[in-house]
Amino acid sequence: MNGQTLRSAIFIAAICGLYLATAMLIPAMVDLYYGSADWQVFALSAFFIGGVSLAAAMATRGHPAQFSKRLGFLVVNLLWLTLSVAGAVPLYLSSLDLNMADALFESVSAVTTTGSTVIAGLDSAPPGILMWRSLLQWMGGIGIVALGLLVLPFLRVGGFSYFKMESSDTAEKPFARFAVFVRAFVAIYIGLTALCAVCYGAFGMGIFDAVNHAMTTLATGGFSTRDASFGAFNSVPLLWTGTIFMTIAGLPFSVLILFVARGRYDALKDPQIIAYGLIILVAALAVAVSLRLGTGESFGMALTHAAFNVSSLVTTTGYASSDYTLWGPLVIMIAFFLTFIGGCSGSTAGGMKAYRLVIIANTVRAGIRRLIYPNGIHNVRYGTMTVDADMQRSVFLFVLAYLFIWAAGAMALAATGLDIETALSGSITALANVGPGIGPIIGPAGNFSSLGDPAKLILALLMLLGRLEIMVVLVLFTPLFWRD
Amino acid sequence: MNGQTLRSAIFIAAICGLYLATAMLIPAMVDLYYGSADWQVFALSAFFIGGVSLAAAMATRGHPAQFSKRLGFLVVNLLWLTLSVAGAVPLYLSSLDLNMADALFESVSAVTTTGSTVIAGLDSAPPGILMWRSLLQWMGGIGIVALGLLVLPFLRVGGFSYFKMESSDTAEKPFARFAVFVRAFVAIYIGLTALCAVCYGAFGMGIFDAVNHAMTTLATGGFSTRDASFGAFNSVPLLWTGTIFMTIAGLPFSVLILFVARGRYDALKDPQIIAYGLIILVAALAVAVSLRLGTGESFGMALTHAAFNVSSLVTTTGYASSDYTLWGPLVIMIAFFLTFIGGCSGSTAGGMKAYRLVIIANTVRAGIRRLIYPNGIHNVRYGTMTVDADMQRSVFLFVLAYLFIWAAGAMALAATGLDIETALSGSITALANVGPGIGPIIGPAGNFSSLGDPAKLILALLMLLGRLEIMVVLVLFTPLFWRD
Repeated sequence: MNGQTLRSAIFIAAICGLYLATAMLIPAMVDLYYGSADWQVFALSAFFIGGVSLAAAMATRGHPAQFSKRLGFLVVNLLWLTLSVAGAVPLYLSSLDLNMADALFESVSAVTTTGSTVIAGLDSAPPGILMWRSLLQWMGGIGIVALGLLVLPFLRVGGFSYFKMESSDTAEKPFARFAVFVRAFVAIYIGLTALCAVCYGAFGMGIFDAVNHAMTTLATGGFSTRDASFGAFNSVPLLWTGTIFMTIAGLPFSVLILFVARGRYDALKDPQIIAYGLIILVAALAVAVSLRLGTGESFGMALTHAAFNVSSLVTTTGYASSDYTLWGPLVIMIAFFLTFIGGCSGSTAGGMKAYRLVIIANTVRAGIRRLIYPNGIHNVRYGTMTVDADMQRSVFLFVLAYLFIWAAGAMALAATGLDIETALSGSITALANVGPGIGPIIGPAGNFSSLGDPAKLILALLMLLGRLEIMVVLVLFTPLFWRD
Repeated sequence: MNGQTLRSAIFIAAICGLYLATAMLIPAMVDLYYGSADWQVFALSAFFIGGVSLAAAMATRGHPAQFSKRLGFLVVNLLWLTLSVAGAVPLYLSSLDLNMADALFESVSAVTTTGSTVIAGLDSAPPGILMWRSLLQWMGGIGIVALGLLVLPFLRVGGFSYFKMESSDTAEKPFARFAVFVRAFVAIYIGLTALCAVCYGAFGMGIFDAVNHAMTTLATGGFSTRDASFGAFNSVPLLWTGTIFMTIAGLPFSVLILFVARGRYDALKDPQIIAYGLIILVAALAVAVSLRLGTGESFGMALTHAAFNVSSLVTTTGYASSDYTLWGPLVIMIAFFLTFIGGCSGSTAGGMKAYRLVIIANTVRAGIRRLIYPNGIHNVRYGTMTVDADMQRSVFLFVLAYLFIWAAGAMALAATGLDIETALSGSITALANVGPGIGPIIGPAGNFSSLGDPAKLILALLMLLGRLEIMVVLVLFTPLFWRD
């Protein structure tokens, strides 16, 4: 690590800060339009963040450092840190009376597209603040897609390199069609958000609610403008619209590009998409049957709620249509374990991700065959491809680090005095960037406002770790990384 | 799989049944001595099991099949199934009024050295039954050591092959000093049990209690003759005696042999022993501090209880000195995660095992270094040795299968209607062969009697899966295994 690398990383983060300051003008205008005095908060924050960013950019400009993996790791960490801290400024200054830990928690929850909230009373919150939360989440969403498709493959994190070849379609000249590629996925992200907003509006949401929910749907973030989340709207068409768009947002954007731009249906045959679809389908049916038998709800209605909440959990969105933790122990347990899973790679979803589950399942199968015939050749397949030993190891590493950090997080939360249900589910819902946990405090009917500041900071750290695929953050904690 | 293989496997299991029938004469004599009418139950069971076993042995004797891995897998599964079912017969017939699921649960819990019990009212149970439970557990303990040291290495399950070379000291001629080796470890097992019984007796237990507890201590089983487990004796010297002998029983028997028979202190430098010791030490201190601060208990007393209960959990014994789930959320969480860990390989302890933790930790460390320097050589070390890719994979496979089965078990338990705390902890305490879970039902102050029969059978299956290192059972469920 030399000075030039560090300087270049700070420069990039400062540029990002400038963009963020500009983005603050949007909620300022929203507040002006709705006549909320909080517009001044955003103007002030924009001025402050813009000034600091400009100063940092001036101080660190110059000949950029050569690209290296260390620069990559540093930039990614700094970007999300900048988004988190700068995003928290207007929240802290707003009329909502949040303390520093609250504001940071809410901001991290936004930029990591987690969706846990410490704000009780969303229904009466200033519109600018609501818009700011949604906007942060939406930007966090596009940021993570860019990270997954464009940056992580070069850092070789978590088995992503595998999908570099498969998905970019530009394996020979990775940077040649870069601009085309970026434009395509930004267009799809914006297009889908607009389409989602139109559908929400058509099925009865007001325009403000529709725009906010569309942004947090496509980001698989899950921030709502209502304390009761989607339960406030209580409409079957809205629930299905949400289910469909959340599920789309959990698909790999590379596949969406192939599908939308070139009409390649075969792109949908990616094994992770099949696994992802099957998990949602099977879990939704199990929950629907459970709900039908347990409460006597009609099967149609049961399936509507089951599909919505299951896809909300699997895509790590975190909306709730009602308090599913009242639907019996089996549903609670399904919700708990779905929290670990996550969507597809290269999507806005967090969690362990479906392709890792496919690889693990196939590795276990090959391992059992090897026990019976130790001298046979037992390749691990992913669709038509063979998963090499390096890829297997990187998947295993990720999953074990993920589970270890979940356990450590739960232990830390318990040490702050939280009960075991809240601690176990809180740790994973933060790490997987889902949103709600289980239990009376942080379950779908609760929120995170009553937790102590240490618990909120632990959760914010877990969200960042999870969002940056763990390893990207962990490398920063090795002495090796900082050595010259 | 051919007929001869199957016949040979049944023949071996039948011989084991004959030994078990003979062993039933011990509790029969105990009941006769104490004047309990249940001696007839054991005489009858011995007659019945002996007869069935003899018939099976007669029907399947003949030229034995050549040793193959499939025969190995089949024999191991059949042996534990025979022990479980035959062991349940006297429990079912006894005056305790257990139904079939209860009797099977108790027997499986014994032979897998788990120690969960469905019997409430141990203090007044017939002595023969108590002796039978302890004896089954003690035999299960020696069985698992034999399995781990002598059989699993040849089946190449769960990374055990690694320790074959290291521990047997007979790498060149594996069968040459076989008899010496077996005699040594049986002698150590019996010797330690006797020494433990003497110590328990010296510190105030009656002879019957001392013998029973010594057997279940060395087996890291944890069946007690009292409902309150070690809490019934309430004696500091007894608690420390238990702590010491449990901790010894969680050490690899191969190391104990080197240490006892040849005075090789260096054998204790095995990295898994260091990890195992550190885990117990750190967790005991954390619990002691927690208890001291939470309840104002003196530090000495807090450490006594903390060390006892922590080593009981880590060694997968499952005794309790008091209801540690009343010591606050941090202690509950520590207890929950300690349940996953387990002792050393080649011991009577269950769980994930310390050497796997060491290998995983070192693999994660090497993986992070590889992210920074992708072209460097980043070997995974275990002490002075290098862990090859095969070994790493087999460790990962085991751990992921273990966690997956934990989750599936918890889901199945929740489907029977159990609350999430009971289901999550019940699944892992069975799978890791520990004994108590957390929560009011199956926590250290409770027992398993109030669970429904489906839950009991699910737990029994989990115990067997865990005891046989998962893979040994799973191979039986592949069509490949049964093909000719």
